[in-house]
This record gives sequence, C-alpha cells and structure tokens, in this order.
Amino acid sequence: MAYSQTNLVADLPSGAGVDLHLDLNRRGIRASLTNALRDAVRTGRLVPGTRLPASRSLASDLGVSRSTVTESYAELVAEGWLVAQQGSGTRVARRAEPHSRQTRTSRGTPNRRLPTHALMPGSTEFGEFPRAQWLAAARRALSVAPRSAFGYGDVLGRVELRTALADYLARARGVHADPDRVVICSGFHHGLKLMTEVLTARGVRAVAVESYGLHIYRDLLAEAGLQVPPLHVDGHGARTDELSALSGVGAALLTPAHQFPTGVALSPERRAAAVDWARTTDGLILEDDYDGEFRYDRQPVGAVQGLDPERVVYFGTASKSLAPGLRLAWMVLPEDLVSEVAAAKGDVESASALEQLTLAEFITSGAFDRHVRSMRQRYRRRRDQLVAELAERAPHVHVTGMAAGLQAVVELPPGTERSVLQAAGQRGLLVSGMAEFRSPLTDPDRPAPSQDALVVNYAAPSDSAWANALDALCSVMPGT
Amino acid sequence: MAYSQTNLVADLPSGAGVDLHLDLNRRGIRASLTNALRDAVRTGRLVPGTRLPASRSLASDLGVSRSTVTESYAELVAEGWLVAQQGSGTRVARRAEPHSRQTRTSRGTPNRRLPTHALMPGSTEFGEFPRAQWLAAARRALSVAPRSAFGYGDVLGRVELRTALADYLARARGVHADPDRVVICSGFHHGLKLMTEVLTARGVRAVAVESYGLHIYRDLLAEAGLQVPPLHVDGHGARTDELSALSGVGAALLTPAHQFPTGVALSPERRAAAVDWARTTDGLILEDDYDGEFRYDRQPVGAVQGLDPERVVYFGTASKSLAPGLRLAWMVLPEDLVSEVAAAKGDVESASALEQLTLAEFITSGAFDRHVRSMRQRYRRRRDQLVAELAERAPHVHVTGMAAGLQAVVELPPGTERSVLQAAGQRGLLVSGMAEFRSPLTDPDRPAPSQDALVVNYAAPSDSAWANALDALCSVMPGT
Repeated sequence: MAYSQTNLVADLPSGAGVDLHLDLNRRGIRASLTNALRDAVRTGRLVPGTRLPASRSLASDLGVSRSTVTESYAELVAEGWLVAQQGSGTRVARRAEPHSRQTRTSRGTPNRRLPTHALMPGSTEFGEFPRAQWLAAARRALSVAPRSAFGYGDVLGRVELRTALADYLARARGVHADPDRVVICSGFHHGLKLMTEVLTARGVRAVAVESYGLHIYRDLLAEAGLQVPPLHVDGHGARTDELSALSGVGAALLTPAHQFPTGVALSPERRAAAVDWARTTDGLILEDDYDGEFRYDRQPVGAVQGLDPERVVYFGTASKSLAPGLRLAWMVLPEDLVSEVAAAKGDVESASALEQLTLAEFITSGAFDRHVRSMRQRYRRRRDQLVAELAERAPHVHVTGMAAGLQAVVELPPGTERSVLQAAGQRGLLVSGMAEFRSPLTDPDRPAPSQDALVVNYAAPSDSAWANALDALCSVMPGT
Repeated sequence: MAYSQTNLVADLPSGAGVDLHLDLNRRGIRASLTNALRDAVRTGRLVPGTRLPASRSLASDLGVSRSTVTESYAELVAEGWLVAQQGSGTRVARRAEPHSRQTRTSRGTPNRRLPTHALMPGSTEFGEFPRAQWLAAARRALSVAPRSAFGYGDVLGRVELRTALADYLARARGVHADPDRVVICSGFHHGLKLMTEVLTARGVRAVAVESYGLHIYRDLLAEAGLQVPPLHVDGHGARTDELSALSGVGAALLTPAHQFPTGVALSPERRAAAVDWARTTDGLILEDDYDGEFRYDRQPVGAVQGLDPERVVYFGTASKSLAPGLRLAWMVLPEDLVSEVAAAKGDVESASALEQLTLAEFITSGAFDRHVRSMRQRYRRRRDQLVAELAERAPHVHVTGMAAGLQAVVELPPGTERSVLQAAGQRGLLVSGMAEFRSPLTDPDRPAPSQDALVVNYAAPSDSAWANALDALCSVMPGT
C-alpha cells in the first residue's frame, strides 16, 4: 500500500496578468485541478473576470492531457464558478464571489451580481454576528485591560482567554483543559500547521486522515512531506480500527463529534479504538472539534480528548460558533507538546490581544452561551425546514448527517451527483458534491464506497436569502 | 567572503521539565546562545523560576566548550535575566518578565516582583493606547460592517483597510500605494516571513542585512537557508554602495528612515545607490519602516519606496504607532509580487476582520493622525528629558540617533559596555547593549567598527515609571 503523494506545482499565467500558483496532487489529477481552481475562485485568488489560460497551454505547462484541463474547466463552468464565452475563452464568473474580494474597490463601481444561492460549506453570508454584545464585551475588556495587553503577547495567547476557554471547554465539551496547555491560534488551519511542524520535527512520516474531508487539510499535511493514508468512513464514523494495520502512522486527524462532511458521530467503540491505538503506538489523535457546540437531537457528544488528554490534541474554533472573520481558534495540548508548539508558533503572538480579551469577556459574561443557544435554535429551524421541504418536493432523496452542526448530506441516486451539480450551476446555486471531499489516495485493495450526494451548508444564507436558496435546491433534485 | 551560516539546533531540557528549542548560529556561538536565552526569557518561553541545565550538560548537548555556556549564563546573570543560586543552579529571574507570561494565572497568586526598569527596545509597558477612541472606531466599524466581514477574509486583507492605508501612506510617507498592492499581515515578522518564502521560491540565495539590527530577522532569513551578508552602517546609514560588490544577493533588508538601532537616516546618496543596485541587478529592497511616523527634528524622511515602487517592498506596522498587541502590519508590493505573496500567505486571512475594519475607521476618521501627533509630542518630551538628564549627570557620554523614533543610542567609553550592563542588572535596569545587535557574520577583511553603547527605548516605561528608570540609567553611567 503506497500512500505517498507527489505534488505537481504549476504557475498559471492568465491573460489578465495574474499568476496563480497551483499545487496539485499527481494522483487524481483532474479532481485535484478542479479543486484547486474552485478554491482559487472561492477565496478570491482568481478574481471575477480573470481569463484562464487556454486549455492547450495549461495542459502543456502541467504535463497533463488537454482533456484533463477541458473537463476540469467544463465542470467548473457547469457549477457556475467559471464562464465559457465564445471568442474570449474561459473566465472567472462575475457572480462567484461568496467569500472574498470585495466587488467594490476604492475606485471601482460595484459589479453587477447575478442572483446566487450559496450553500457550500465555508460560505459565509453568515449574518448573525452578535454585534452589540461583542461591542459591549470589547468595552468591558478594554476598560480593564492591563498595560501589558497592548504589548507583544504571550506566545501561548492571553491568559485571560486561555483561562476562560479551559473553563468553558471542560463544562461544554468534556475537555480536560488547563490554561497552561491551551494555545490560541488564528484558525484551525494555523493550529494544524503548527502541529504539522512539531510532528515532522519529531520524525513522524504519516498522518492518517478520514477518507472524506476538506482537501486543504490533507494538502497541508502532504505539502509538509507527510503521507496521508485514509481511514474509511462508515455509519459509525472513521474506521479507527484500521489504524493498527497502517504502518508508520504517528497521528490521526479526526472529526469525532460530527464527521465532516458525512455528519456521522464517532461511535464509542471507535473512540476507544483510536485511544487504544494512540496509547499502544505512542501516537497522537488530532481532534478537530469544528462544530461541537451545535447538537440538536441529543446531549452533546463529548470530546475524545476527555478519554486521554495526553494522547489527544484538541482543536476548537470561533469560526462556526461566532464568525470566521475573528480568526480565533484554540488547541488543548498534551503537556509534553506545549513547549514544542510554542516554539513552532514563534515568539510573536499572531492574534490580536484586544480581540482575545474581548472573547474572554464574551465567554465569562455568559454572552457566548446565550449566543450559541440562540444559534442552535436558528440552525435547528433551518435544518427542519430543509428536511421538510425536501421530504415534500423530493421524497426520494434521503437527508443524513444533520443531528448536529451546520451542514447536512442530501443523498442522491447513484450516478446523478454530477448532473445535479450542473443543474445547480445553471440555477445560480453554488453547492458542493460529496466527490469534492473524497481523498484521492484510495487504497486499490480497499476502495472507499462512493456515495452520490450534496453537502449542504444550510447555515450559509442570510435569512432573506434562505427561502430562495432552499427553493433552488429542491428544484434541482433529480426527478423533480 | 563566506557568509553562510550553519545553525545548531539544541533542545534545552531543564530540571523543571521545560524543553526549550534553541536555534543557534555556529559563528559567534556565545553571543548567539546569550541572545537566544535572553529572548526566551524575555518572551516568556522560559518562565520565571525555571532552572536551566547545568553548564556541563548543556555544553555537551551543544557540542561547545563549557566556558562558552558559563560565560553566557554569567552575562545574563549580570544583566539581571538569570539568577545564580548556590546549590540550586541557575534560574530565570523572577522579575525578568517585561513582555510576556502573566505572573498571575487563574489559580496562582501574583509573584513578588522586584522593582524593574525596562528600557530595552521591544519593551511594552507602553501605556498610551487610545482606548476610548479605538472603541469608538470599533463601534462605527461594527455598525456598518457588511455581512461578508464576518466570513473568511480576502487573502490580501480587508479592502477598507487597504484603501485607508494606501491613502495614508501616500500622504504621510510618500509611498506609491494602490490598495491592490497592499497586503495586511500580523506583524513585520509575518510579512518578512512571507517575503522570505517568495524570495527562496524565486531562487534567491542571499539577502543583505545591516550589520546592526535585530537578530530575529537575520535568523528568520538564515533559517530559510538564505545567506545574510552584512552591510556596514556608518553616519549616513547602511553602506548600500557595498551591494554591488556582493555577489548573488537578491534583496537587501534596510531600515532607511531610522536605522535600527543606530538611529541614522539613510542619506540621499545611499538611497540612490540602493535603488540603482536593485534596478541593475533585478534585486529588491525590503524597506522596514518600523517607526517612520515619529520624526522630531525635521520633516519626515520619505520612504525609499517612492523612488521606485517596482523595486521596493515597503513594510509598515501598527506596533510602534498604536500597539504591538494589535498584531497589524502591512506591506506595499511591486505589482509582480502580489500574487506570489498572496499564495505564500495562504487562503485564510490571518488578521481579525473586525480589527482591520476598526483600524480603517480609526485612520479615515483622523483619529490615527491625532494619536500619532500626540505620541510624537510625548516621545519628544521624553527624549529631551533623557538628553538633558544625561547631559547634567553624565556629561561625558554622547547621545545619538534620537532625531526620530522611540530609541536613542547612549555612546559609552570604549570597553565599558559590558560593565555598564552589569551595573544596570544590579540596579534592576533592563537595557540593551549595542553588541546585542551586531551581526555575527562580519567579513574578516572588513570588520565592522564596534561601538560601546546602550540602546535606550525611552518610550517603554509608563509615565509613573519613567522618572525612576531615567534615574537608574544615569546612575549606571561610567564615572558617575
């Protein structure tokens, strides 16, 4: 079983003078190219209107067949990210700007936007930031902040926030947290990057990942030279029982509370298997608790970290519970990792001290709990509407993975995912297919079962946009 | 001329169970060890009370002579960072916590602090953060922030802040700035790290630095595998005329407005030489404008970037003008570097969007200009007091480099720097000697002239602490 991943790096020069650095995976090259381009559009690295290189020249630069490039372009045109125009080649769609670059600059005029319904994971029309309560917390935090808060910070992060988080995580997520083991970072991506540096410095060669997940995290690990063998995902979560059969794996990256994107919770047996593996092999579990605050159907599933705090690195984030724009996340570390992570982070704190103090105040004042409760009701309502509407208008599709979190899986009849995504593109509906999250590194001996499905982020649209987005989604269901 | 730098990496296990990762420069090993330990204490990676390893075992781990370690420890004991106790070895001093870790945790009790006067560059008792005005800007920013502000940001940074900075920098610093070429980062260190990635990816092998400067930036470059040949610094600033004699240099890191730490402004001839070199060799100037806002004796010295925006990467920061705790800085890039820097930065914005919007509002409302003007008066008063007091109590020392910025150089009689630092340590005065900033990579054929001096950050102490700090400083001057 060879899981190594060679990367193909291409600089994509466009007619508009934009160079785009693409880091592609040799295996599954078309999916990798499609994902890289989609991400570049989504995040604004490729701005609306940018002309992409001709398929022939890009194929030649990449050393791949021309059909790989044309298929990749066609798929993104179908999904609405790109536009193909007779005589002017393929361009980034004007409307495809859910995330990023502003349509207005200091000089420009607003671009005309076509109606777009954004339901992809990571979409951020997220309109419910508690502005007044946040400002009140900022006022209280600023009024009592010591002088030292305005200086270069503690490399671990402000002690006030680490203390508030330790208390909150123990109470709400069953995490064994001591403030001295909490490290503040500017997003899960940042935290995982730090852990990757520590792991590679320790000589770790491979980190197991879930066979479905966000490719940016697999890529981050692979770019650091790590192998990323996948664990199958089934109705009980990741197959952590497979870990002991993989050789040379030093850590496993898991989403136990609510597997992303399938939405399954890791079963107690699988949790035990993961911890047993870590204890036996001196391995580490990297627990990505990205939406652990949101559970609708039953008691919150506690963090795996509670089972063995010396074997689990716990990652939490304010991105789902508050807003990605805060760029605040946290890790709870085994004791023997604290100084290594601190060294990887460097001597200069990367998150604003004022923002850290504000979040500490927001948590200790109870505003965070109130906000999470209110968001939980709101998302639950959304989820119920999604389920009810689909049950009525597309009774043959099955919705799963929605007992928690912000996304649900809409299972489709076999072979229909791509055509549904194309129909969605034509309706101006930006949504993700399950295939987008599949690890390209499947073991030929044990292929991952594929499932045609959409991953729907029902928390993405604003209240005013939700009804239309839901309508658009229902309208593209097969057989409707 | 060989400027290559081999690094020696050591993990420093202490009796207290703290591992400390030290990255040392093989050349000038004692100074390098002293600097690394001093930094670790200053930034809190080595917490007060921590016991350092026995000199014999550390020497053996590092593969250096035992006397190197004992001299390094002795120097830091003399400066007040460490304490040597009969029978219990060498420990981090309890009082040496200007920067970082809180002395109080959620459970602990405050440590007893001995009186300390902190006058080192980077000290941050900095008490004049404009809390009320900042909060007012945050309120206005939050009330008009678009929904998208709470999402994943533009990789370059919020357009509102990039636009506000472009206008401000053009007006105040003579920078040719277009918002599309401004990139927000979380400190100069972050910006330089991004540029280092871009330069190494472009095949650059060496970046010239000033022969006096902060070693953390030289180290950052060297750790990326770059050679860092030094340019001599004299009364006209860095000897940029030496650039053309250095082979293989792709960029030069300079502090033109106010050379750090000597305080000299780069002369017009040297500016022209730098730009000519960059044009001729297709090189880049990395302009660290860390305190360009503060000029006392004459008109502000404009940025070198204005001479050739396609050859200069301009770096500015809110750390001196507002507070390091904000973790906000900015780069203005040549057009052909924007996409490469954006790719190095990654798809996820690292600075809080709310903080960026607040700073944009703070600038456009005029609050930033008012704040800088008020700080300028305050620092000028401090500087005048420093000069007057030294003139009276230590008439034989000479103060230079204080026409701008937050620090001054107190020139000492030859051979007295070390004893003055030791006397300062005994008085609880934490201050830096010029030797701390000297590049260890001197060219044997052209040794840098050494100058015994203290580098005094007169902006560091709070108003209530200033008089005592100044008194302590005067009391340790030689011959007083």
